[in-house]
Amino acid sequence: MVKRVGAFGEVVMRLEVPGHDLLIQSNRLKYSFSGSGVNVVSAMTRYGYTGLLVSRLPVNPLGDAAESYLRGLGLSTEYVLRGGQYIGMYFLENGYGARPGRVTYSNRMESSFNIASEGTYPFETIASGMDAIHFCGITLAMNDSVRLAMKQLAQAVKEQGGTVVFDCNYRPALWGDQGYVTAKPHYEEMLHLSDIVLMNERDALHILGLNTYKVQREEQLNELIPVVAERYDVRTLAGTHRTIYSDNRHCLQGYLFKEGAFAYSEPLTFSVYDRIGAGDAFASGIMYGELEAWMPEETISFAATAGMLAHTVAGDTPMASAGDIIQARNSTVRDVTR
Amino acid sequence: MVKRVGAFGEVVMRLEVPGHDLLIQSNRLKYSFSGSGVNVVSAMTRYGYTGLLVSRLPVNPLGDAAESYLRGLGLSTEYVLRGGQYIGMYFLENGYGARPGRVTYSNRMESSFNIASEGTYPFETIASGMDAIHFCGITLAMNDSVRLAMKQLAQAVKEQGGTVVFDCNYRPALWGDQGYVTAKPHYEEMLHLSDIVLMNERDALHILGLNTYKVQREEQLNELIPVVAERYDVRTLAGTHRTIYSDNRHCLQGYLFKEGAFAYSEPLTFSVYDRIGAGDAFASGIMYGELEAWMPEETISFAATAGMLAHTVAGDTPMASAGDIIQARNSTVRDVTR
Amino acid sequence: MVKRVGAFGEVVMRLEVPGHDLLIQSNRLKYSFSGSGVNVVSAMTRYGYTGLLVSRLPVNPLGDAAESYLRGLGLSTEYVLRGGQYIGMYFLENGYGARPGRVTYSNRMESSFNIASEGTYPFETIASGMDAIHFCGITLAMNDSVRLAMKQLAQAVKEQGGTVVFDCNYRPALWGDQGYVTAKPHYEEMLHLSDIVLMNERDALHILGLNTYKVQREEQLNELIPVVAERYDVRTLAGTHRTIYSDNRHCLQGYLFKEGAFAYSEPLTFSVYDRIGAGDAFASGIMYGELEAWMPEETISFAATAGMLAHTVAGDTPMASAGDIIQARNSTVRDVTR
Amino acid sequence: MVKRVGAFGEVVMRLEVPGHDLLIQSNRLKYSFSGSGVNVVSAMTRYGYTGLLVSRLPVNPLGDAAESYLRGLGLSTEYVLRGGQYIGMYFLENGYGARPGRVTYSNRMESSFNIASEGTYPFETIASGMDAIHFCGITLAMNDSVRLAMKQLAQAVKEQGGTVVFDCNYRPALWGDQGYVTAKPHYEEMLHLSDIVLMNERDALHILGLNTYKVQREEQLNELIPVVAERYDVRTLAGTHRTIYSDNRHCLQGYLFKEGAFAYSEPLTFSVYDRIGAGDAFASGIMYGELEAWMPEETISFAATAGMLAHTVAGDTPMASAGDIIQARNSTVRDVTR
Amino acid sequence: MVKRVGAFGEVVMRLEVPGHDLLIQSNRLKYSFSGSGVNVVSAMTRYGYTGLLVSRLPVNPLGDAAESYLRGLGLSTEYVLRGGQYIGMYFLENGYGARPGRVTYSNRMESSFNIASEGTYPFETIASGMDAIHFCGITLAMNDSVRLAMKQLAQAVKEQGGTVVFDCNYRPALWGDQGYVTAKPHYEEMLHLSDIVLMNERDALHILGLNTYKVQREEQLNELIPVVAERYDVRTLAGTHRTIYSDNRHCLQGYLFKEGAFAYSEPLTFSVYDRIGAGDAFASGIMYGELEAWMPEETISFAATAGMLAHTVAGDTPMASAGDIIQARNSTVRDVTR
Amino acid sequence: MVKRVGAFGEVVMRLEVPGHDLLIQSNRLKYSFSGSGVNVVSAMTRYGYTGLLVSRLPVNPLGDAAESYLRGLGLSTEYVLRGGQYIGMYFLENGYGARPGRVTYSNRMESSFNIASEGTYPFETIASGMDAIHFCGITLAMNDSVRLAMKQLAQAVKEQGGTVVFDCNYRPALWGDQGYVTAKPHYEEMLHLSDIVLMNERDALHILGLNTYKVQREEQLNELIPVVAERYDVRTLAGTHRTIYSDNRHCLQGYLFKEGAFAYSEPLTFSVYDRIGAGDAFASGIMYGELEAWMPEETISFAATAGMLAHTVAGDTPMASAGDIIQARNSTVRDVTR
Repeated sequence: MVKRVGAFGEVVMRLEVPGHDLLIQSNRLKYSFSGSGVNVVSAMTRYGYTGLLVSRLPVNPLGDAAESYLRGLGLSTEYVLRGGQYIGMYFLENGYGARPGRVTYSNRMESSFNIASEGTYPFETIASGMDAIHFCGITLAMNDSVRLAMKQLAQAVKEQGGTVVFDCNYRPALWGDQGYVTAKPHYEEMLHLSDIVLMNERDALHILGLNTYKVQREEQLNELIPVVAERYDVRTLAGTHRTIYSDNRHCLQGYLFKEGAFAYSEPLTFSVYDRIGAGDAFASGIMYGELEAWMPEETISFAATAGMLAHTVAGDTPMASAGDIIQARNSTVRDVTR
Repeated sequence: MVKRVGAFGEVVMRLEVPGHDLLIQSNRLKYSFSGSGVNVVSAMTRYGYTGLLVSRLPVNPLGDAAESYLRGLGLSTEYVLRGGQYIGMYFLENGYGARPGRVTYSNRMESSFNIASEGTYPFETIASGMDAIHFCGITLAMNDSVRLAMKQLAQAVKEQGGTVVFDCNYRPALWGDQGYVTAKPHYEEMLHLSDIVLMNERDALHILGLNTYKVQREEQLNELIPVVAERYDVRTLAGTHRTIYSDNRHCLQGYLFKEGAFAYSEPLTFSVYDRIGAGDAFASGIMYGELEAWMPEETISFAATAGMLAHTVAGDTPMASAGDIIQARNSTVRDVTR
Repeated sequence: MVKRVGAFGEVVMRLEVPGHDLLIQSNRLKYSFSGSGVNVVSAMTRYGYTGLLVSRLPVNPLGDAAESYLRGLGLSTEYVLRGGQYIGMYFLENGYGARPGRVTYSNRMESSFNIASEGTYPFETIASGMDAIHFCGITLAMNDSVRLAMKQLAQAVKEQGGTVVFDCNYRPALWGDQGYVTAKPHYEEMLHLSDIVLMNERDALHILGLNTYKVQREEQLNELIPVVAERYDVRTLAGTHRTIYSDNRHCLQGYLFKEGAFAYSEPLTFSVYDRIGAGDAFASGIMYGELEAWMPEETISFAATAGMLAHTVAGDTPMASAGDIIQARNSTVRDVTR
Repeated sequence: MVKRVGAFGEVVMRLEVPGHDLLIQSNRLKYSFSGSGVNVVSAMTRYGYTGLLVSRLPVNPLGDAAESYLRGLGLSTEYVLRGGQYIGMYFLENGYGARPGRVTYSNRMESSFNIASEGTYPFETIASGMDAIHFCGITLAMNDSVRLAMKQLAQAVKEQGGTVVFDCNYRPALWGDQGYVTAKPHYEEMLHLSDIVLMNERDALHILGLNTYKVQREEQLNELIPVVAERYDVRTLAGTHRTIYSDNRHCLQGYLFKEGAFAYSEPLTFSVYDRIGAGDAFASGIMYGELEAWMPEETISFAATAGMLAHTVAGDTPMASAGDIIQARNSTVRDVTR
Repeated sequence: MVKRVGAFGEVVMRLEVPGHDLLIQSNRLKYSFSGSGVNVVSAMTRYGYTGLLVSRLPVNPLGDAAESYLRGLGLSTEYVLRGGQYIGMYFLENGYGARPGRVTYSNRMESSFNIASEGTYPFETIASGMDAIHFCGITLAMNDSVRLAMKQLAQAVKEQGGTVVFDCNYRPALWGDQGYVTAKPHYEEMLHLSDIVLMNERDALHILGLNTYKVQREEQLNELIPVVAERYDVRTLAGTHRTIYSDNRHCLQGYLFKEGAFAYSEPLTFSVYDRIGAGDAFASGIMYGELEAWMPEETISFAATAGMLAHTVAGDTPMASAGDIIQARNSTVRDVTR
Repeated sequence: MVKRVGAFGEVVMRLEVPGHDLLIQSNRLKYSFSGSGVNVVSAMTRYGYTGLLVSRLPVNPLGDAAESYLRGLGLSTEYVLRGGQYIGMYFLENGYGARPGRVTYSNRMESSFNIASEGTYPFETIASGMDAIHFCGITLAMNDSVRLAMKQLAQAVKEQGGTVVFDCNYRPALWGDQGYVTAKPHYEEMLHLSDIVLMNERDALHILGLNTYKVQREEQLNELIPVVAERYDVRTLAGTHRTIYSDNRHCLQGYLFKEGAFAYSEPLTFSVYDRIGAGDAFASGIMYGELEAWMPEETISFAATAGMLAHTVAGDTPMASAGDIIQARNSTVRDVTR
């Protein structure tokens, strides 16, 4: 039977200046709708699962457009409720080589998702029959009622036997002056509820406040991740290290830690077309491998390749099927397919 | 010497779906920056005056883009301050014939303009040497601190001998449930401060609570406007009546009341390309005629033609020079000018 | 409980030259996916029903894009199967005033839909719980196996108590030299299976071969439609008369015949933005009124207004909600909604 | 055998602001290549003739693009020579309803065409086997060497038995302060060389300096055109009267005078999409009718309809085939052709 | 005298998703018309030859657009006949780095070209005065009547002393399950008719079934190509080896075998903008060098550079002049030319 | 107090084919307005100075669009006068990798700027209170009256104590056959008037006719620049060496010579998005460092980084703030800023 995978998170409107123009140079935008949960669950539908988003959209033409877009991505919108007036937005100016891209947010605090009152979502119903659910540190940064809902839903899925996945995804701009101090207890709560966690050694050091005498990132990772796994009772941890070159190429290497052992993907070096959302593609790969009960080596290689391919398509949301990913993993660069 | 004309008001970002698509059908937007004050003052610069906007924009790429756009419109941005993080936005879906256009607002309450604290603007400096200044009922609807700033600036200009212009521009959606009741005292205060007021009989009836036994709009106008002029000591009042046909044509007739007498423009019937901002073009025409001390008949005819031409250009902001308007007023429809 | 409404028909790719250029003048196309069934069922989802399409798409990126598009329209794609390699296409060059638009078809005979072999669709399952289903004369023109499938599905729905709707939609180009002679028996079979039929007096005269001495279209309609209703035992018949003016305006009047009586809508005159698919909007209005058990006058007025609004939006597929239609029916032309 | 029809004239680059934006509002242009001769001869190729342009283009990428464009229009570019550095250009801002379009020229005086020295073109070769050739008053306004070339070529074609066609097309901006005085002798020379002349009563009054006591345009036309025919020994004269309405509709009526008698087309009223080049379409219709030896009534009706259809397509250059024109002449407005 | 070079082959419509979007992500296409023969002959016209295409297009607006496009490319369309209803099409989704591009074909089997009956083309007339003609393995894969026409025309040109060129261009998807077995006899027949053949060692191994103990591609080439030359009596053979890197760069090296000796071009490494059609540019270079009777070293270097430049322009069809190619061959990378 | 920096030079219209198409392949252009002076002064406004352009634009819609564009760039247009009819234009076809871009000029000799008569500009007024002014070798190439104006303004600024900056910017195409011979005296005059000069060893060799036995560019530079500084009494000299790679990357190294010593920037290697105008960004960096009295090492590093960033934005005109440049100088390549 087809597995059901969900995500809880905000839908945001991406307003991208086409090409490499700045907002001050252009008068055109391209829009789409995404969000960490949207991206992960949409990827899962391309792997053949049923993907459900748990979210809330405004009752206006922007909400209609978002819902239609999500359906077009293959998501079930059964639990995308409608209410409120606003949707979170961000403006994207693409960088080029030595010039970094820029993201400018609209005021997302009054979005339909963020102002939903307690009891808005039927969490018990949603949790029933859910094989896995994805949460993200961006959602955790929103406000107390969103955090409460997030934990309630995680709890409900856990209780009904589903897998809880949490991507730390710490965004300094969202946590204010006392960032790590404010964030730590919420992250710890989510870690305790989670089976699979996406993070790396920086999260362990900064959010969780762990210490190490090691200096190399790789050594820090090897020392700290097992500590996290044990302290918070997390079954599987995974994450990536990224290197950025001046000619629009990135290098990505993934790790997966499980049952006391690390597995690593080969470092992948590739040209980048659209940076946003690639981490969600990696997360989707980890979830898929784990739900399919693959070997760690297979999972981490699939996830890293999914991440790489997500850098080659426009928009935040991964577009590759499982077949595309496996083909890209197995092959050298190919000519046009015809 | 070139006259200096200002406006106090919010700059909003217009995000228009190109052509006649709905948001749900498209993935492209065209953006520009406008606002009632922007439109009026920009029109005045095309008549040869110096136009100054008094406003506040965020410190981010959207603020940069807005400031550049305003400068391109010919405005002086000396008093366009920078602070805060957000800019008001609206999404426009153009209608077609029997299908009306739709406007969807983002949350403008946290915009840089609306959260400016008292003392943000150097009103005395701004008022000095200002020949006239324009205010609008949309600004009046924002919040108490904006209303306070508005009245302070009007007072300052009045005291220094400048002309105060107020466009009633009542928008029901902005005033909440107790709309007219809440709005009335603020409107009355602005009327007392104003030399020129843009309104028609509906504002007199609904906002100011005047009564009449007349049924015809024209008769109501003739009865109520003189009452308003006397009660609030307003030198000049002007406004329009609009009729809308099913084939994208509108008919517009303007009135101007001054020194106890009405002047009317000929009814103008024309095809409409972009509806938004045409009222501001009309207001600019009234201001221009009054500042140039034209005969009322000349002023109202110029203003109505300015309004008509503003329906024929893209965007909120009028683009016609005084010469264009006079030529359009004097001529029948012309072939290509080459 | 939410009603379930289906349609059986081909999905076609619409490739439109943007604006009013000819194919020989341009190098750009805008694409979307539609079809008579798609349009009708999509409209029904906007009225609040569950809409299901029964069709077949190729196993390639065009099929993926079509399926995503259909989901974005709100359709359930549970019965949109995948197989074969081709999708039907048509190129649209928009006309302007005195210059008619042009439609150029690709070879649709080898489309995934048209080459589906017997037994492809699980008709019994599909028919169960279907409140109504829509068929169209374009589908009837395809080939014998499509015709067989069409009749089998109509039969299955009829047997399970659902309402069968048939839109005559005779396209001369699809039936070859012996057009009416070839088509007649198939049309008669469908009429016998149908509860609701969309047609007018021309179909009665040309396809069914009825005769009349009347000359006026209105008189012919009044004479022939009751004959059709009785001969083929059709519960409800409906259709439109259209007049085209030289300034891009059309006039539309609808009729509905039921229980021995005619109801007519007011003639609606309006500017046309996109002609294609407006007949499907009318059909959706008839189906909706009938399924809601409205008075004939209410139904025909709703359907004609739905047809009018469909002329004002881009693309083949209607976009108006039931609320939009009722508002347009009740109101005069309105200004921007803000 | 297929008739060969030529034209002598400059190729200009049309740089159009898309939609209805002004140059100050946009950052995009759409370009194409046209010219009075280009338009006429291209139309003739669509009627089935061989069309040859006699002109000169720069030796650079703009010249390459122009030559490719002309070939795409169906023209033979055998006599489109290459030399010089510049091409004439004009910028077009489309009007809308009450706002007229605007045309802004670049400096065309140094164009490759206008600086061609005597002996550039092999006129004897070109003239041999040419059934007809078209000249235009715009070319006549350029400079002495262009005027000389024009008259030499007209003379050469005349001597070899071809039909010489001249469209008066007087553009005040091109003739300077002493416009009519300067122009008259050149126009008279061309009239003496011509078999067919496109003009109306205004040309007779202003350029040729004829007089009349009549006030109505129609009466002036009836009086003056026969005088012109006799004085300059012109076989056929034709032209149009145009009325412009405020809703983007024009009314066009054509006349043709030949063998002492006038023929008129029905007045055609239609919506206008692109005004530029419609006169050339009319001229092409007159040439075609005359070369086919049609009845005057048939010719003038064909030409007026050709003119009407040219208003409904983008760009300067007519796109209708003879079949399209005859169909439009014979029919009422039609629905989409499919 | 200017040489006349022809090609026999289908014209296909290229429908490209702009930028790097997938069909599922976009709603826009850019179209153009190409084909292996179109590309080769168009390149030849840029080298200064007269290029003639022998093909067949539908009698509809797509056929009109294709013919206009071919003329704009500089081709003579004298032998581009019109008949039938369909044109072959392919949809192109551009890849990016690690993600390969995708090509999706429409049903080309019913295209006007592929259904042309015997006797459609006047081969004797076409062959007379033709200096060289190009054929391609894609055309050979179509059907028996196309294959027959192809061989008849090759025979006719050969008999009249023209040079016959054949590009093996084997496309597995077109030959079905028994690909090589089915294809071999047809390829052998074409090789026997040809003076110049484009192929490499893979064609020798797979299509012609030759054997070698060598493992390195270069060694296989050196062993097998002389065998082919002798066995099929081919005067000149040429081809390329391509290496693809992960950062959108390719490396290309060409060989030419003639009179018992190999000539190689320097390996060229370059960034790729548009992959499609580059092989045709290489073929055009070989043809040009041979027709100009250049030294093999000069020819292969010109052809490889032509291939490289074709990767840097949009579309299938090469755009470089002989001068451009020679300049690129002789120079290092240059700054903007101004 | 905010420094005032000016430039004297022509405003040109840039007409760019979007993407990488050639003019022959496209029908769209993107336009903007630039010029060496525009670029330099616009950059200075982004560093916080007041930037003034001294130029002349036509009295037509192109002039209006240019003035609006310049204002949007942040320039003061107080001394952008209006007169004449034409604006200089250039068409840009972007190159790709091995294919260089191409620039095609319109006839700029009759531009409003180039035909301005003596006495057009109020040089004394302009010079008063000007901290620095920029001139360029392109302007020097125009004609005698422009050269005279240039020297008069330089003299006026020098006399009032402002800094005179001159960028040699020698363009061979503008100086005709006797290029260097004609140019030399004018360059020498400008050098004598200048405090800061942008040039490198090639200008010293070719324009000024200096000699050296050195072969390496670096050695030539080290030998010749001190000679120039002494001979023409120039306080500061600066310039760059550029290397171009085949994968769209350039390498740039800057030098600055002052008070007898050279300072060099680190060689910067980066991917190039838009080549045009990068030299002006470098010049603006030199001017800024000198006006801020920075250490030479700091100035040259800032200027080279400004040059690098200008290669990463669309259009001729630099867009980076001083903060952006310092951040780019100090950091490694960064991920998206969010």
